[in-house]
Amino acid sequence: MKTRIYNIVEKGSHGKRTNRIFDYVILVLILASVTTIVLQSVPEIDAAYHDFFISFNIFSVIVFSIEYLLRLYVSDLTHPAKNRFRSALKFITSGYGIIDLLAILPFYLPFFMKVDLRFLRAVRLTRFLRILKVNRYNDSLGLIWSVVKEKKEELAVTGFLTFLVLLLSSFIMYYVEGKVQPDKFPNILSSFWWAVATLTTVGYGDVYPITAVGKFISGVIALLGIGIVALPTGIIGSGFMEKVSETRQKKKVHRCPHCGETFEEE
Amino acid sequence: MKTRIYNIVEKGSHGKRTNRIFDYVILVLILASVTTIVLQSVPEIDAAYHDFFISFNIFSVIVFSIEYLLRLYVSDLTHPAKNRFRSALKFITSGYGIIDLLAILPFYLPFFMKVDLRFLRAVRLTRFLRILKVNRYNDSLGLIWSVVKEKKEELAVTGFLTFLVLLLSSFIMYYVEGKVQPDKFPNILSSFWWAVATLTTVGYGDVYPITAVGKFISGVIALLGIGIVALPTGIIGSGFMEKVSETRQKKKVHRCPHCGETFEEE
Amino acid sequence: MKTRIYNIVEKGSHGKRTNRIFDYVILVLILASVTTIVLQSVPEIDAAYHDFFISFNIFSVIVFSIEYLLRLYVSDLTHPAKNRFRSALKFITSGYGIIDLLAILPFYLPFFMKVDLRFLRAVRLTRFLRILKVNRYNDSLGLIWSVVKEKKEELAVTGFLTFLVLLLSSFIMYYVEGKVQPDKFPNILSSFWWAVATLTTVGYGDVYPITAVGKFISGVIALLGIGIVALPTGIIGSGFMEKVSETRQKKKVHRCPHCGETFEEE
Amino acid sequence: MKTRIYNIVEKGSHGKRTNRIFDYVILVLILASVTTIVLQSVPEIDAAYHDFFISFNIFSVIVFSIEYLLRLYVSDLTHPAKNRFRSALKFITSGYGIIDLLAILPFYLPFFMKVDLRFLRAVRLTRFLRILKVNRYNDSLGLIWSVVKEKKEELAVTGFLTFLVLLLSSFIMYYVEGKVQPDKFPNILSSFWWAVATLTTVGYGDVYPITAVGKFISGVIALLGIGIVALPTGIIGSGFMEKVSETRQKKKVHRCPHCGETFEEE
Repeated sequence: MKTRIYNIVEKGSHGKRTNRIFDYVILVLILASVTTIVLQSVPEIDAAYHDFFISFNIFSVIVFSIEYLLRLYVSDLTHPAKNRFRSALKFITSGYGIIDLLAILPFYLPFFMKVDLRFLRAVRLTRFLRILKVNRYNDSLGLIWSVVKEKKEELAVTGFLTFLVLLLSSFIMYYVEGKVQPDKFPNILSSFWWAVATLTTVGYGDVYPITAVGKFISGVIALLGIGIVALPTGIIGSGFMEKVSETRQKKKVHRCPHCGETFEEE
Repeated sequence: MKTRIYNIVEKGSHGKRTNRIFDYVILVLILASVTTIVLQSVPEIDAAYHDFFISFNIFSVIVFSIEYLLRLYVSDLTHPAKNRFRSALKFITSGYGIIDLLAILPFYLPFFMKVDLRFLRAVRLTRFLRILKVNRYNDSLGLIWSVVKEKKEELAVTGFLTFLVLLLSSFIMYYVEGKVQPDKFPNILSSFWWAVATLTTVGYGDVYPITAVGKFISGVIALLGIGIVALPTGIIGSGFMEKVSETRQKKKVHRCPHCGETFEEE
Repeated sequence: MKTRIYNIVEKGSHGKRTNRIFDYVILVLILASVTTIVLQSVPEIDAAYHDFFISFNIFSVIVFSIEYLLRLYVSDLTHPAKNRFRSALKFITSGYGIIDLLAILPFYLPFFMKVDLRFLRAVRLTRFLRILKVNRYNDSLGLIWSVVKEKKEELAVTGFLTFLVLLLSSFIMYYVEGKVQPDKFPNILSSFWWAVATLTTVGYGDVYPITAVGKFISGVIALLGIGIVALPTGIIGSGFMEKVSETRQKKKVHRCPHCGETFEEE
Repeated sequence: MKTRIYNIVEKGSHGKRTNRIFDYVILVLILASVTTIVLQSVPEIDAAYHDFFISFNIFSVIVFSIEYLLRLYVSDLTHPAKNRFRSALKFITSGYGIIDLLAILPFYLPFFMKVDLRFLRAVRLTRFLRILKVNRYNDSLGLIWSVVKEKKEELAVTGFLTFLVLLLSSFIMYYVEGKVQPDKFPNILSSFWWAVATLTTVGYGDVYPITAVGKFISGVIALLGIGIVALPTGIIGSGFMEKVSETRQKKKVHRCPHCGETFEEE
């Protein structure tokens, strides 16, 4: 009995056709649930279908809750540990455990306190990543993830340098533009907002320098922004290349200069 | 006779000089047809040359229609199949078959229903891609296409992650900014519009956050936007590199200067 | 005598110290000349130093004219040809010959017709590229140039695809937004302006869609813009990598499997 | 005694646990000092905690000053030279020497002249780079730095070409748009501001062309902006790749599985 539940809720998309249905039902429910949140945000649509949305909301949360409890029930199979309690804890604190809890919690919370966290249900979309895991997109997701992980130090250093540039430029800009445009650069935090919008080249146009010095600094920051794009792109690009050549080199055949025999590279 | 039509309408740019003329005439007509649509959109020019535009329009559609029928006539040569009907169907549902139909259909449709789909004629510009196919740009187009195709899983995963980031951020932004700027963030779809404009760093400036929390999230999204550029660039860059080294590895044949014999690099 | 002029005006920066002075004088004059144009554009500064600017202008054009005539005089040494006239023609139609003429022509033209082309003098700045040619930046400029040249087909195809996307999206956008915002999308050319601003992610904010369909298309174009950046970046990146590995491979040593002797790769 | 001070102020993070505390105290103080500047810029917060900020400011500057003097005291150990004076000079003119002085100078300057340079204290954040140097981020920072340094000629040439494009386009734009929008393009410097905002694709929206010619040039510049991003990205990306393959090639030692002997790959 337990094994069957396990096969259905955890092995679904790997296993037999009948088991896979469960997974697709959950996915459709997640999609419908997210679409509901989007539609509910439009007052006209919400007014017309309010009762349906409420009913569907309750229905989907009940299904998601049952699924969560079933997963918790079979957690000793998915997260083996010394005892049942540790297995449950392992599941609850695992990536998908937290995401699944975040997706149903907003429904129960209002009974205790007055907050609207329904938008958290969107995190459930990450569930689709689990689907990616069982098909041909698996390798691609794994490749992207491994490249980002392998280059995390370089990316972190780039991030730190970016932060330094943002902070320094927002300091200078506050002193330069703050006196001329006190409404646009009232404090350094506002100045930081300008710095982010400029360095990332978003440039909404709500804040921009009007003094000559401010424009000069702004231009320098914007040009630096090109470098801030070039660095992570170069880092990630080289990471992908490494992975590719690693995979290829596994097939490389060498000839030993000592005995003359050939062998494949380990 | 049929072979000759086939040589003219399908083999034109490959074949003899006389045959190639047909292709150039069609291309000039496509260019003129597209230019006409652009010019017709300017009221002053349309008013001055209205009759000419109408006449030219009828003329070009007749030519395009004849060409389409000729292509359909020789479809058993270009799309060999069990019988004539299947060949015709194969041609009609082929890439260029659909494009050519889309280009002439808007002219005949108004006789049946009242829609203005003249702009569809622009799809005919893709015809120029066929020209690219017969000269030195052929390899380049093929290379770009093969890189995109080979990396389609990685690009699709990047696209999916981008969509997740867009959706999650537009959910959060709706709850954060919706109350303060109900005219700019009236619903989640509007919020999604802001998310796209920010992540792609377009930043028109029609919608932007004004609360501190909103600006913080906006800044994070804009910085994530750099990663969203870096990932596909790195993926495509490594794809081009792979192709280049593949091509090189295939050709690597060495001639030993000592004994004169040739051998391929291992 | 002619050889000496040749050494001074053409071989300056390569040659002896005394000859190099000429080159530096010309460069300083170009810089001063460009700075003058910038300063003259500010009414207050122009009003204060108008006479000086006029005098300096005449002075610099005289020097540039003499230099041009000297270059023309020694053109049979720099551009060897059958006869003097062909040499002169070769020089006049050469890259730097055209640039130098463009730089002095705007001064003489007003005597014949009423046009203000002084800004053409800025093209003289490209002269600095010639300086780059004689020092360590030479290789870098050559490398960048050779990469762009080698990948020109791929870049041209990317450019063509970009143009197709721009044209198609501006066609659609004109029909979608033109009726709602006739002042922003009055014709397809205006629509094209929006398409360029969106695809390149500049997003000035002077033109943006307000309809749901328009925003959807705009979002797609903006996301495509990321691909339009990724393609040339990947192409150029792989081009640089090729050059690097080409240089490195020249040093590669191979062992012939037939006779056992080693040799360097050709 | 001197050696102990040296161990504490200069070797802190490398050395014993007790010594490391000094480094962390200074870092916390720098963070607190920078946070104070940010908070002081918000009038409401400054009004509420003005006295605390003043006191903390004096306290931190005293600590930073003592640290600077201690560093100066042990400069003969960190910057060995012929005599004490040369050592001190070496320290004062070193990177971190200048940064540390810039961080405390703004406090003492107002006694002599009336300038507000407190924002210079932010440069002290670069101190965090020193921390990066002693842990696993060290290699990453070194790698990024070495790539940028190795490619500095290519990047400089790209920068020069960018400057040429900016200058030429701002010249042309001034003559084209200056007459129609004298308030937006009053002189070439303003035009240059537009050129930077367009080429970097920031596009604030404060300055944009309204004439047909101006829009055409603007579009060309924006499209060129893609190339300006592609060039440094490609250069830096190939630089990272080179470093990676260099590291790999150095390490490539193979063990033949047939005879057991090791050999380096040729």
